[in-house]
Amino acid sequence: MNAEIIAVGTELLLGDILNSNAQYLSRELAGLGIGVYYQTCVGDNADRLFSAYEIAFGRADIVITTGGLGPTEDDLTKETAARYFGRELVMHDETMARIEEIFSSQGLTMIESNRKQALIPEGAQVLPNDNGTAPGILLEADGKIMIMIPGPPNELIPMFGKQVAPELAKRSGQTFVSTVMRLCGIGESSAEGRIKDLIDAQTNPTIAPYAKSFEVHFRLTAASGSREEGLAMIEPLKAELYKRFGQDIYAEDSTTMEATVCRLMAEQNLKLATAESCTGGVLASRIVDHPGASAVFLDGTITYSNDAKIARLGVKPETLEKFGAVSSETALEMAEGAARTSGADVGLSITGVAGPDGGSDEKPVGRVYIGVQAFGKSSAIEVNLKGDRDKIRARSAAIALDFLRRTLLNRG
Amino acid sequence: MNAEIIAVGTELLLGDILNSNAQYLSRELAGLGIGVYYQTCVGDNADRLFSAYEIAFGRADIVITTGGLGPTEDDLTKETAARYFGRELVMHDETMARIEEIFSSQGLTMIESNRKQALIPEGAQVLPNDNGTAPGILLEADGKIMIMIPGPPNELIPMFGKQVAPELAKRSGQTFVSTVMRLCGIGESSAEGRIKDLIDAQTNPTIAPYAKSFEVHFRLTAASGSREEGLAMIEPLKAELYKRFGQDIYAEDSTTMEATVCRLMAEQNLKLATAESCTGGVLASRIVDHPGASAVFLDGTITYSNDAKIARLGVKPETLEKFGAVSSETALEMAEGAARTSGADVGLSITGVAGPDGGSDEKPVGRVYIGVQAFGKSSAIEVNLKGDRDKIRARSAAIALDFLRRTLLNRG
Repeated sequence: MNAEIIAVGTELLLGDILNSNAQYLSRELAGLGIGVYYQTCVGDNADRLFSAYEIAFGRADIVITTGGLGPTEDDLTKETAARYFGRELVMHDETMARIEEIFSSQGLTMIESNRKQALIPEGAQVLPNDNGTAPGILLEADGKIMIMIPGPPNELIPMFGKQVAPELAKRSGQTFVSTVMRLCGIGESSAEGRIKDLIDAQTNPTIAPYAKSFEVHFRLTAASGSREEGLAMIEPLKAELYKRFGQDIYAEDSTTMEATVCRLMAEQNLKLATAESCTGGVLASRIVDHPGASAVFLDGTITYSNDAKIARLGVKPETLEKFGAVSSETALEMAEGAARTSGADVGLSITGVAGPDGGSDEKPVGRVYIGVQAFGKSSAIEVNLKGDRDKIRARSAAIALDFLRRTLLNRG
Repeated sequence: MNAEIIAVGTELLLGDILNSNAQYLSRELAGLGIGVYYQTCVGDNADRLFSAYEIAFGRADIVITTGGLGPTEDDLTKETAARYFGRELVMHDETMARIEEIFSSQGLTMIESNRKQALIPEGAQVLPNDNGTAPGILLEADGKIMIMIPGPPNELIPMFGKQVAPELAKRSGQTFVSTVMRLCGIGESSAEGRIKDLIDAQTNPTIAPYAKSFEVHFRLTAASGSREEGLAMIEPLKAELYKRFGQDIYAEDSTTMEATVCRLMAEQNLKLATAESCTGGVLASRIVDHPGASAVFLDGTITYSNDAKIARLGVKPETLEKFGAVSSETALEMAEGAARTSGADVGLSITGVAGPDGGSDEKPVGRVYIGVQAFGKSSAIEVNLKGDRDKIRARSAAIALDFLRRTLLNRG
């Protein structure tokens, strides 16, 4: 089975909005074992939309549209589908009642044009919308399936997950189970090189590497008759990856690096303080991204100036003078100072040259020092990063979190 | 003239990456007065790619492809274009020399497959790439224009702006000049409502509102014979917008809020210190995003715990006890403490409930207090934000920067 995605809306063609729905749907369809060979964007124009349907159904069994189900005259997805399949649009009373209920519960009067949203091509299946007025529609005819989903992601994502995916899984007859192994501290080509034999030999489960921002993810997918069977098929492959990559694997599935670090800190009953220079809060901000951060994160300082490094963290003026603000010596004193001045158990620091200015022959743009103070000792690493200011800052924070994670794991 | 955009890459069809290039190109083409009726995504497959070219050229004068210009066998954009136009691929010596130079400057040995990137369809125009090895290509034949651009946005965006846009402008015979007015502190529908008469009456120049993350942008575009003429046509509209929106307009074109705040601080020779709680570094990180931040940004603290608020900033335990950590009183003491303990002239603070936990009936998720200490007085505002944790944090930082900007503007 293969599918095509047609995003409908002139605002997409004007570049006013980003077509994130196509990415979401493609990924979900891949997970269901349904191939996607084309995605199309077309505006709110009946003839061009009709032509897009003709082309798509000439190539695919399933066409999924997003958008164009609103109450205005510009919304033509459903009307054009009815024309394409030669069906009448008929009033769906249940949907009409649901829409009226939404309006009255908000104390609003329904306007006439909203009645249009309750019109459904004859014989089609209605996919109720828990998060908006426009229902989704599944229309099956002549061995073809057309699925129309509202455009707003907060309506589309739950509707696809709860209603469309089960319908498609039923038709594909297979269950696809995926696990993601998340790695940090290893480059994509190196990671890929070390599993080349597994990739070459793969049939079911499959293994696919993805480069994520400063991480590498392996997605393992098994196709089988049931979820349990699929998970059992993935287990040996997971064990093999743990054998090969060990601590480079920091978590599975949707667990983030910051969540992993917070968990390790909490397990060891430790409190963290950060001290940042060039990253200017990117590190602390990533930690605080994790809702559980408050249990372990005590305090952060952004000592952007030398004065602040001295006043806030007690970095010695001689150290700054002799080795410079960007040095492992300063990184160590920042980490120690962060822990000492805040009363935290662990201090984590970053100091570096994020560019575009401030680099020198001796300390070029991209030179970053990361310090950790924990368990009565401190250590620092030097890294040399490529890219623009944002990339260097984001990457520095990622490496610092990974450095802390490894320190916590190897407390010995 | 109308154009189509074809994004090439199986990774798009698997949902591994987001097609942000299509949005960028659509917006830029709209700005050039070139209509886009369809966007397509297709994988790294020669036959499907060929078919996508046929369909696109059946509908449009100009086809712009993104991606598929890399050195691997999967990269087929150029090869398929050569086949479509019946051209040979020939070695472009200048490009070959440029690629060799890139490798040798990085101390790397060029691998054989990179030679493929210097092959160009006979008679095509090469668009040199300042940020990568793959050149862009412009191929003109039979009244059709094909433009191939590398996929990475950091290569695509400068190549389009510097090389492709001027070529297209030349062919469209008109010059399009755009100015963006950037507003903060006003909602999209309210902003749009206040220019409805201008939108309804627009012909040339045109005015289009865009909702950006916590900002509203108005894009003014004039079509004329020359850049100077276009700019002169835009001036009266700009003046009208300044009259209507005043200080809600914080900058023009690509000048960011953080750059505006840093400029105002530098002009008044002031140094800034920040104190954050729920935002956890998002505010400082945005300021440090601006390369000129080091001239004005002295110090930041992320006093996530009450202990840190007391120890780092001298917030009174009684204040925390009596009013709570999320209160205007605490925000004021954080702002004062940030300035006092760092020796900065201006202190800016944020404390709030970012969620998902920690809310109460009295202080629900989304309640945020922002404090400013400047020119011998301090003031705080309360805001109540909607959205998830990330949105509340990002929005809090945006409002804090705007609050500081207005404080600096109204020093008088």
